[in-house]
Amino acid sequence: MQQIDLNSDMGEGFGRWSLGEDETMLETVTSANVACGFHAGDPETMTRVVTAAAARGVSIGAHVAYRDLAGFGRRYVDATEAELVGDVVYQIGALQGIARSVGAEVSYVKAHGALYNTIASDERHARAVLTAITRYDPMLVVVGLAGSPFLDQARAAGLATVAEAFADRAYTPDGALLSRREPGAVLHDPAQVTERMVDLVRTGTVEAVDGTRVPVHAESLCVHSDSPGAVAMARAVREGLERAGIAVRPFLADDPPRAGDAAVG
Amino acid sequence: MQQIDLNSDMGEGFGRWSLGEDETMLETVTSANVACGFHAGDPETMTRVVTAAAARGVSIGAHVAYRDLAGFGRRYVDATEAELVGDVVYQIGALQGIARSVGAEVSYVKAHGALYNTIASDERHARAVLTAITRYDPMLVVVGLAGSPFLDQARAAGLATVAEAFADRAYTPDGALLSRREPGAVLHDPAQVTERMVDLVRTGTVEAVDGTRVPVHAESLCVHSDSPGAVAMARAVREGLERAGIAVRPFLADDPPRAGDAAVG
Amino acid sequence: MQQIDLNSDMGEGFGRWSLGEDETMLETVTSANVACGFHAGDPETMTRVVTAAAARGVSIGAHVAYRDLAGFGRRYVDATEAELVGDVVYQIGALQGIARSVGAEVSYVKAHGALYNTIASDERHARAVLTAITRYDPMLVVVGLAGSPFLDQARAAGLATVAEAFADRAYTPDGALLSRREPGAVLHDPAQVTERMVDLVRTGTVEAVDGTRVPVHAESLCVHSDSPGAVAMARAVREGLERAGIAVRPFLADDPPRAGDAAVG
Amino acid sequence: MQQIDLNSDMGEGFGRWSLGEDETMLETVTSANVACGFHAGDPETMTRVVTAAAARGVSIGAHVAYRDLAGFGRRYVDATEAELVGDVVYQIGALQGIARSVGAEVSYVKAHGALYNTIASDERHARAVLTAITRYDPMLVVVGLAGSPFLDQARAAGLATVAEAFADRAYTPDGALLSRREPGAVLHDPAQVTERMVDLVRTGTVEAVDGTRVPVHAESLCVHSDSPGAVAMARAVREGLERAGIAVRPFLADDPPRAGDAAVG
Repeated sequence: MQQIDLNSDMGEGFGRWSLGEDETMLETVTSANVACGFHAGDPETMTRVVTAAAARGVSIGAHVAYRDLAGFGRRYVDATEAELVGDVVYQIGALQGIARSVGAEVSYVKAHGALYNTIASDERHARAVLTAITRYDPMLVVVGLAGSPFLDQARAAGLATVAEAFADRAYTPDGALLSRREPGAVLHDPAQVTERMVDLVRTGTVEAVDGTRVPVHAESLCVHSDSPGAVAMARAVREGLERAGIAVRPFLADDPPRAGDAAVG
Repeated sequence: MQQIDLNSDMGEGFGRWSLGEDETMLETVTSANVACGFHAGDPETMTRVVTAAAARGVSIGAHVAYRDLAGFGRRYVDATEAELVGDVVYQIGALQGIARSVGAEVSYVKAHGALYNTIASDERHARAVLTAITRYDPMLVVVGLAGSPFLDQARAAGLATVAEAFADRAYTPDGALLSRREPGAVLHDPAQVTERMVDLVRTGTVEAVDGTRVPVHAESLCVHSDSPGAVAMARAVREGLERAGIAVRPFLADDPPRAGDAAVG
Repeated sequence: MQQIDLNSDMGEGFGRWSLGEDETMLETVTSANVACGFHAGDPETMTRVVTAAAARGVSIGAHVAYRDLAGFGRRYVDATEAELVGDVVYQIGALQGIARSVGAEVSYVKAHGALYNTIASDERHARAVLTAITRYDPMLVVVGLAGSPFLDQARAAGLATVAEAFADRAYTPDGALLSRREPGAVLHDPAQVTERMVDLVRTGTVEAVDGTRVPVHAESLCVHSDSPGAVAMARAVREGLERAGIAVRPFLADDPPRAGDAAVG
Repeated sequence: MQQIDLNSDMGEGFGRWSLGEDETMLETVTSANVACGFHAGDPETMTRVVTAAAARGVSIGAHVAYRDLAGFGRRYVDATEAELVGDVVYQIGALQGIARSVGAEVSYVKAHGALYNTIASDERHARAVLTAITRYDPMLVVVGLAGSPFLDQARAAGLATVAEAFADRAYTPDGALLSRREPGAVLHDPAQVTERMVDLVRTGTVEAVDGTRVPVHAESLCVHSDSPGAVAMARAVREGLERAGIAVRPFLADDPPRAGDAAVG
């Protein structure tokens, strides 16, 4: 039986402000990328999300970001490698502290926003993130963009990786995400998105914008949490996958990736 | 042979700014209260201090504070209990993450600035701090003001405690610190301070401002790190203690306090 | 013809986060209390709100707060007087800068959250706020709680004042707001609230929780912007006032308070 | 009689932290670049510096920066143009508010750190800074790197400009600053620096690292404030200039640049 993980961003509020419907999304996804305070995520919110995730058997990941609350971590910050190593360790530790305080645990790391996009190809900041993870706990799984050099770099560093695809994004013929600046970059029809994801899990390929099929090997699908219709989209994808006989479960549930296990990603 | 711990605040810079001479102080003290990012302490600084402390066998404590970078944690912030529990867990976790990344470990918690002063007598914020520690790790030792209700509250919560005295402060006849607003509240003569501390360790009492002797039971002496002459003062105290045959060592070295061991504090 | 001002909090988002429906509220209120960056309010949001307010002839006020983004300015911060003077000047100047950049102008100052509540009775922080206003521009109008010592203090300092009542709050027999912790403190029925406000403007009194009538002299009514139903409530109040023949207009429109004019508040 | 302005960075502390000896530097320089809170500069510090500058007849400039307290504004932040326009207006307004509160005035704008370096050649962020200045007050003078495209862009936008040279930096044969990563990029000998600056003012040229002379037209010389020996260096330069018969005075004192006056820069 085929299986797949569904991950989504959580805890993206800060103090008085909230984003998305975390409680509802946690009923649908199997992995929660939890903001750690640098782009969003105050400790009280983090505690609530982690508690709710653990109660539902949802895996908890540290959603680490550049220090950029005003820009929600969507802006590249030209940090030194040493600064970034420290910032990533700090964020993982903080979330792990919150998790520990409610009897839960952080099991993976995923970069957020500009940091995610930067490390997909920038070796220097990628190295900083991987160094941070290695120093903090080399058993933590690294989630990254399917097909990106970052995942190769992570595996070369001896870390277990999980490749992810984006449920509602169009792909170019060479397997990259179509830039958000292009028309049609984001798909809005739950039925279409669901069909594509079932297809992706079954065939390891997805239809690119030019109609060709392009290979995308993913162990996790990212569904957005903060757009209107996010919950409906996530539910549609999950139900569609299950209807197609694909098990939706945390990537760590049955076959935990192991450090040094290069076959994982 | 009598023994005592010397603790001092460390890592109180932030980014471009630094305070005190951490490296030098680490050669003299036996416990380092490390800022965790809320009143001071960026991750790179935290990493440097924790690494240096571990290399010298100096114990590492989380110096937790109100979220108040602009006020250096010296201003009371009327946080809710839930906010404060989260903030304290977050800070301990972040420092523990940094410590773990360099093979070190946080072994105690001490509040900083306004939080320290507040919890000495405010039951609500004291409870928040103790709840945070209990949830994060009930084996962490709590350092607090000798004779304060806070230490009683900590012991009642089942936590191990260490009472501290302040090396360079005058005491009132009832064993409290003389307010900094009063003349003579801070002592500046290393010889006088050293003599008082030797006396305190030997007799469990200190001479109050009115000349009477007042009991102060302390397992640790706090020496300041950020005033001019701080290093000289710390060295004088250490050398004076050792000359008097008192061993200066971490309070955890020989006889680690244990959770529930009400005799510790 | 009687008249009254309607004021509401605006620009209470920060970066990715938003609160309330500023554009819609600006069609109903006549004075906008604009967040200045310390409890909410990034410069882009501030620019948008100020531009929209100016386009509608809505007066612009600096909604100054304690430096407390994580607590939305709802937490008392024990700042020194000098710190608070600087913080308030900084915030007014920043908003005035934004206003100036779009050809608008700040005409009044109102404290937010914990600062509002604190200065209603705390002379020290009240003095800091008034000193800041006096130093920055003594022609700025001070908006404060009707009947509070703060307004007396402001007038004694030679500043023009505007007293405000809260549309949806219950009053005690001595004219204070019933604490939010008490049942019935916040009124939710637009019809009831509207009737009370028409009554207040006409008679200068409001019915207290014990059924007695208590004098409340207000030149402005504060309507909330961030609760569900806020827009509907604000519209109901405005329409009710106008139906009753009361003009709803900025307190500055016809009869600008003048510095030293003790009759204003 | 030839004249020149000496400018230096001021108010670069934040809360508990301070940098440099502002009071002493203010006796030597004629223009003070005052941090506005985004890379450094709390309101109390800003007030102190502005007051001291005004008392000595030192011109006050807004030292605007990326929002990056943790990185001291030394890190590029990929802000949108709209964000950056807002951030710059906000900072100028805040400092002008502080200045106004003590009867002083901001007369120019200079970018700090990464923003300074970025806009020297990046048209997009340069445009954002210039748009902010134009919207806030087109009479404000823009200080920038002598010979940089930024100054051309500023003049094209109708703003008055002042070109500056760096007293203690080596120049390449094409008139650019030698990168700090190169050996010899920063000069430490006060006598040598003084001689170079006298030479620069007299001849409009400076000796480049390869021994050739390169034209550098500057109306202001930047002397550093936060390095050891900064005060001694600044004094040496000032005294050397005066000994050489060159008047050291604010660039605005006698001949204020005017908007649209393209001959200024």
